[in-house]
Amino acid sequence: MKIHNFSAGPSILPQDVLKKASEAVLNFNNEGLSLLEISHRSKSFVDVMENARNLALELLGLEGKGYKALFLQGGASMQFVMVALNLLEKRAGYLNTGTWSNNAIKEASIYDDIYEIASSKEANYNYIPKGYTIPEDYDYFHCTSNNTIFGTQMKAFPDSPIPMVCDMSSDIFSRVTDFSKFDLIYAGAQKNMGPAGATLVIVKEDILGKVSRKIPSIMDYKVHISNGSMFNTPPVFSVYVCMLTMEWLKKLGGVKAIEEVNEMKARVLYSEIDLNPLFKGYAVKEDRSNMNATFTLVNDNLKETFETMLKDAGISGLAGHRSVGGYRASMYNALSLDSVKALVEVMSELETKA
Amino acid sequence: MKIHNFSAGPSILPQDVLKKASEAVLNFNNEGLSLLEISHRSKSFVDVMENARNLALELLGLEGKGYKALFLQGGASMQFVMVALNLLEKRAGYLNTGTWSNNAIKEASIYDDIYEIASSKEANYNYIPKGYTIPEDYDYFHCTSNNTIFGTQMKAFPDSPIPMVCDMSSDIFSRVTDFSKFDLIYAGAQKNMGPAGATLVIVKEDILGKVSRKIPSIMDYKVHISNGSMFNTPPVFSVYVCMLTMEWLKKLGGVKAIEEVNEMKARVLYSEIDLNPLFKGYAVKEDRSNMNATFTLVNDNLKETFETMLKDAGISGLAGHRSVGGYRASMYNALSLDSVKALVEVMSELETKA
Repeated sequence: MKIHNFSAGPSILPQDVLKKASEAVLNFNNEGLSLLEISHRSKSFVDVMENARNLALELLGLEGKGYKALFLQGGASMQFVMVALNLLEKRAGYLNTGTWSNNAIKEASIYDDIYEIASSKEANYNYIPKGYTIPEDYDYFHCTSNNTIFGTQMKAFPDSPIPMVCDMSSDIFSRVTDFSKFDLIYAGAQKNMGPAGATLVIVKEDILGKVSRKIPSIMDYKVHISNGSMFNTPPVFSVYVCMLTMEWLKKLGGVKAIEEVNEMKARVLYSEIDLNPLFKGYAVKEDRSNMNATFTLVNDNLKETFETMLKDAGISGLAGHRSVGGYRASMYNALSLDSVKALVEVMSELETKA
Repeated sequence: MKIHNFSAGPSILPQDVLKKASEAVLNFNNEGLSLLEISHRSKSFVDVMENARNLALELLGLEGKGYKALFLQGGASMQFVMVALNLLEKRAGYLNTGTWSNNAIKEASIYDDIYEIASSKEANYNYIPKGYTIPEDYDYFHCTSNNTIFGTQMKAFPDSPIPMVCDMSSDIFSRVTDFSKFDLIYAGAQKNMGPAGATLVIVKEDILGKVSRKIPSIMDYKVHISNGSMFNTPPVFSVYVCMLTMEWLKKLGGVKAIEEVNEMKARVLYSEIDLNPLFKGYAVKEDRSNMNATFTLVNDNLKETFETMLKDAGISGLAGHRSVGGYRASMYNALSLDSVKALVEVMSELETKA
């Protein structure tokens, strides 16, 4: 039976990517060695790293605009610290739109003063705050483009008078926007890009080198840039799989092409949530995420029936996060429209049954 | 043609491990999903993580002795920083035995005073300093058990009056010693344990929580311990492959069994280096590493011939590090005695030819 994988992350990857990744573990590039056992300084792997770095910039339309792409380790949680270490001198402004934004604020506060520019915490993050002002004299503004747990997504980004930093872990490469508005973008790979273990950082070089503190080498973006993202042994396999996924996306037509599919998938699912009286969406409509749809059953008595039907239909990874409850359907780039239709069919069947 | 992989890291892994890892990328545990696309909170992966953590302690004889094993990200370079952040209050003592020790000293110096207890830098690190005293009033003592670049290895460890921290990246699980002498052991996976992207940290819990600084969550050993090494998404695939390698080692008879093989391999290669007049060892004999043998050609004119012969024999990864030159044969756990014999045969043939 085909499994429809709605996991929030680590999450679904294209079958073709998985096939190539599996082959590379046995015999990489027909070199007779596994990708896992070759030197990261070998030409074969240096080519992978360079290709991955270039593809990331190319897919976001950031080539030749003063940006560098890095593949680091430690996930978004490490970036919460690195952003502050590299950019925070006196004060920074953060938009608090969910658990991860909140964690970013908490970690950066160790280093200096953090100002919460706006927050939707009082409504358990079911919307994106708007109409805030970003102070001109702060070091940077930080936001989270998509909130995996709550199913909200920033549909527009402010014109920031100061460097704008964005955690795009859960919607990188999923939609078109003017990425040159951002000065630093980071994203854990394990949602829309690849397996866990790699973190993409895209940084505009001219914002670096302006803080007075000493930064440990492994946490210094400048050090990673000057070493071509090979200051130390990179997470070889994860970077390779990210490269394969980006190649897959490029072949599909890039971010513009996948955006259309993602919009279609979201439309199909949210229509069902809105039309089916058994379900209720969690996020306010205008801020609904195209990546993670959060919803609950209006009547909890149907829980067991619904979940048995989901299982029978091969639908996996639909449990909501404990902070929200209910269900969360993550519809990352590699999830097909067919999988969304399979879910909608079960929801609609439940209505017939109930 | 069989390739004899002497790469210094990422490096050779057991064929059986690579086969299982390759399968898991397509279909993990016969669950119909790739290991790369399941939640790290799924029972299947939580079991992998727990198994890996337990195996690490078991293989080192550290079960039930107050230690916790963690699988983190960022390699030894990140541990240089984390060790200092978690343990350094006033002053620490470091043994400087090579490039990596030297980097560990440099990074820790950002946080506080570091004292170089002894160093072999003046001899380009071709020996391990001995006869030093570890001050009783320091926070901890740091050493590097094996120096990959220079081919030296600590054959004995001091009785330290203060917590002893050791970077075992390149000889973890390769030999028997009393590991309970150490309070913190760390090792990048990509040499004797698995693919790049995971870092094993084994820490005695009672040395933690004694510094006054605020530690970022992602760099706080206590946070990782209380989250079962799942504070954030772990490097799933790398941890799984580490688990497979540890299972392979346990089945072979554990560290004691592999130590015998490693000693045999080292004996065979060093005998050839010493008996063959065309070659010269780099490290002083008593400190020679059983993991990385460094040697040079006495007569550089033979370089081309030797390297062609190596290539023809399928011997790869033998280039020495630029700080030493010549050759480096890395003989990690997964390298067979046959591969060492193949190398020795070429060295011996060269003598016949020359």
